[in-house]
Amino acid sequence: MKCTADGNRILSELEKLKTFDMSGPEQPGTTRMLFTDVEMEAREYVKSLMLEIGMSVDEDAIGNIYGTLRGSDPELAPVWSGSHIDTVINAGMYDGMFGVIGAIESCRYISENDIPHKRSIQVIIYSSEEPTRFGMGCVGSRAMAGELPLEDTKNVFDDNGISLYDELERLGFTKKDYDKTVLKKKGDVFASVEMHIEQAPVLEQKGIPIGIVEGICAPSYIQVCIEGEQKHAGSTPMNVRRDAMTGAAEIILRLESLARSYGNTHTVATVGKLSVFPNASNVIPGKVSFTIDIRDVDESVKTELTEKICSYIDCICTMRGLIGSHEITTDDIPCYSDPAISAVIEETCRENNIPYNRMTSGAYHDSLLISDFVPVAMIFVPSHNGISHDPAEFTELSDLVTGTEVLCGTLIKLSNLDSL
Amino acid sequence: MKCTADGNRILSELEKLKTFDMSGPEQPGTTRMLFTDVEMEAREYVKSLMLEIGMSVDEDAIGNIYGTLRGSDPELAPVWSGSHIDTVINAGMYDGMFGVIGAIESCRYISENDIPHKRSIQVIIYSSEEPTRFGMGCVGSRAMAGELPLEDTKNVFDDNGISLYDELERLGFTKKDYDKTVLKKKGDVFASVEMHIEQAPVLEQKGIPIGIVEGICAPSYIQVCIEGEQKHAGSTPMNVRRDAMTGAAEIILRLESLARSYGNTHTVATVGKLSVFPNASNVIPGKVSFTIDIRDVDESVKTELTEKICSYIDCICTMRGLIGSHEITTDDIPCYSDPAISAVIEETCRENNIPYNRMTSGAYHDSLLISDFVPVAMIFVPSHNGISHDPAEFTELSDLVTGTEVLCGTLIKLSNLDSL
Repeated sequence: MKCTADGNRILSELEKLKTFDMSGPEQPGTTRMLFTDVEMEAREYVKSLMLEIGMSVDEDAIGNIYGTLRGSDPELAPVWSGSHIDTVINAGMYDGMFGVIGAIESCRYISENDIPHKRSIQVIIYSSEEPTRFGMGCVGSRAMAGELPLEDTKNVFDDNGISLYDELERLGFTKKDYDKTVLKKKGDVFASVEMHIEQAPVLEQKGIPIGIVEGICAPSYIQVCIEGEQKHAGSTPMNVRRDAMTGAAEIILRLESLARSYGNTHTVATVGKLSVFPNASNVIPGKVSFTIDIRDVDESVKTELTEKICSYIDCICTMRGLIGSHEITTDDIPCYSDPAISAVIEETCRENNIPYNRMTSGAYHDSLLISDFVPVAMIFVPSHNGISHDPAEFTELSDLVTGTEVLCGTLIKLSNLDSL
Repeated sequence: MKCTADGNRILSELEKLKTFDMSGPEQPGTTRMLFTDVEMEAREYVKSLMLEIGMSVDEDAIGNIYGTLRGSDPELAPVWSGSHIDTVINAGMYDGMFGVIGAIESCRYISENDIPHKRSIQVIIYSSEEPTRFGMGCVGSRAMAGELPLEDTKNVFDDNGISLYDELERLGFTKKDYDKTVLKKKGDVFASVEMHIEQAPVLEQKGIPIGIVEGICAPSYIQVCIEGEQKHAGSTPMNVRRDAMTGAAEIILRLESLARSYGNTHTVATVGKLSVFPNASNVIPGKVSFTIDIRDVDESVKTELTEKICSYIDCICTMRGLIGSHEITTDDIPCYSDPAISAVIEETCRENNIPYNRMTSGAYHDSLLISDFVPVAMIFVPSHNGISHDPAEFTELSDLVTGTEVLCGTLIKLSNLDSL
């Protein structure tokens, strides 16, 4: 069977989502952080799209949204597809959003064409896949997997010192029962297929429209703080300085060379966020704090790289008379896709003569976290030049359509399966 | 003759100045930026101290304050002493402020004891010695020296995009004639002696209470911007990255090793202020901008170091596929003190059996800029552990008293001289 998707509608919905932007018009791209006013408005917009096509809509106690297209046997465990609508700072308009809009478009096709499906199909919008606001990624899916008890949300803060818990309470989410509405166990969900832009240039370079993800790299985040001595930049000779910035620079370069030393494409390490204190041109920095983001599909390599950089931080701080601290704030385990679901995606591509490529996801996704309780797989569409987390993020309209049609066909098949 | 200074009064006035602080109580030290509400209040406080002892008070069109203790022959060119009351972020309570309070204490002694002085003595408070708000140091003294025409203040902005000119206008300073009130020419001022904390540990280590400054190192500021490619930290392999942060780290370390290579105590270079864009843990930095601060008492070494680091920036950007820009925003010329004024300071010390040390100032001061039109010298007092630009900045009360007494004696002598 061949499903059809309306590319112009998908695009106009993505364009509409793009307008929910907390950065001013002089800022490039879109910034939309969890539970800000614009993010709440974006949620309402997506919920309205679900309601329009007859889906029911619910939210749990951590703010995950569930849009349900009721199946003919609603007692069966549902099939999930979804992604996120929060963004990094100055983001593009596809990362996360396309997975949500494409899943809704699929449900629209199934609903409008009365395609039989035994299992209910649920479109999930996970709360805060990006760590932009609270420094923690995959907040919603993490909570579903039992890795973020409600009590812990009191210790997760944004840059203004507001806790995640206080935001949940402010918005009324804590009125719902956390354990009943958030926590999932094996069997609750039959299968999950998340569609996403690749965020790397492989598919575009090969001229292939569909990627079938076989494994998702997982991140470790390390919060590093280097303390030196805040002194006058003019009167302090070079040989008596304890400069936190030069110490941090050594660590940044060592991290890069360590990650490069593995010589592959999936071991990566990044210092993306860094603050200097007191940050004045004529003062030797007394403190520099920064994040280290390490990813790999191989857990042992990730662990090894983490240990190496932490031991280097200790070493360089001793050598330079600095005080260094490093705390592993996230250490997620990489996951492999369920082969049976990948086979269904593959079958859908073959039936429609759509070329596909089996591949690994260097970026993590909510699918990584929910793989704890549900078999997962992912569909990738090409990203122009591999650019992502940038206003220049772009996917061809024809690729958006092809991806959505493959997702739609896959969801129909899965929702009619008795077992994987 | 022996002048006496009241240490407790000096300390209580410094403590009072400390309370004019725009950072909250949870922030360490004092932050007081040019033309903010608290800085305007601090100005009023210092002006009230001047008025109390019978000095007349005036301000010029860039906000420099002139407190005048009228001499018996007021037609003669006056003797100057002064410093600044603006601060770096999270500053201590001595840098600048002690030079102002000590000069006022000296005038108080001269006035109360009716010490004869032919020349008028003026206490100057220079506008914004620190570059904290507008990224430009020595704003007031620079303007006096003719290096900051009024028109140029329209192109000097703070972090909120407010121009120095707009602030001058808002506060009514532009009602005064800029050329007449600000610009100085040779002969307008007879001599200047600025008193300041050392901001280095030499005097304390030697156990000597007074430093006679023979030369002042001057700064060059370079504004650097490194642009790479903002990409996803998970899906972008190490070998295709154009990471602005790792490029910046190489420059920071090279700058340090270049400055160290001169092997002396007066060639210094610092990266004190740095911003990462978009500054998210999971995004490869697309842009990093930072300041380079290079200082030396030897102009040729400063120029050489500036050229070397700029050429390295070009080189490393080419190698890493980055786009680098560097703009020299300040290039001040080091100065030497007037030997005749230094001799008067020395004579004052000898008369009172006060040990002294001839030395160089690594930090720059307003004296550097005004040396263009007036013979200058400086008196240093010890800084505990050499700490400055930090809340832990500290000078012993006895050293504050000794410094003020030497300044007072020096001002009396200078104000009665016909020529240097």
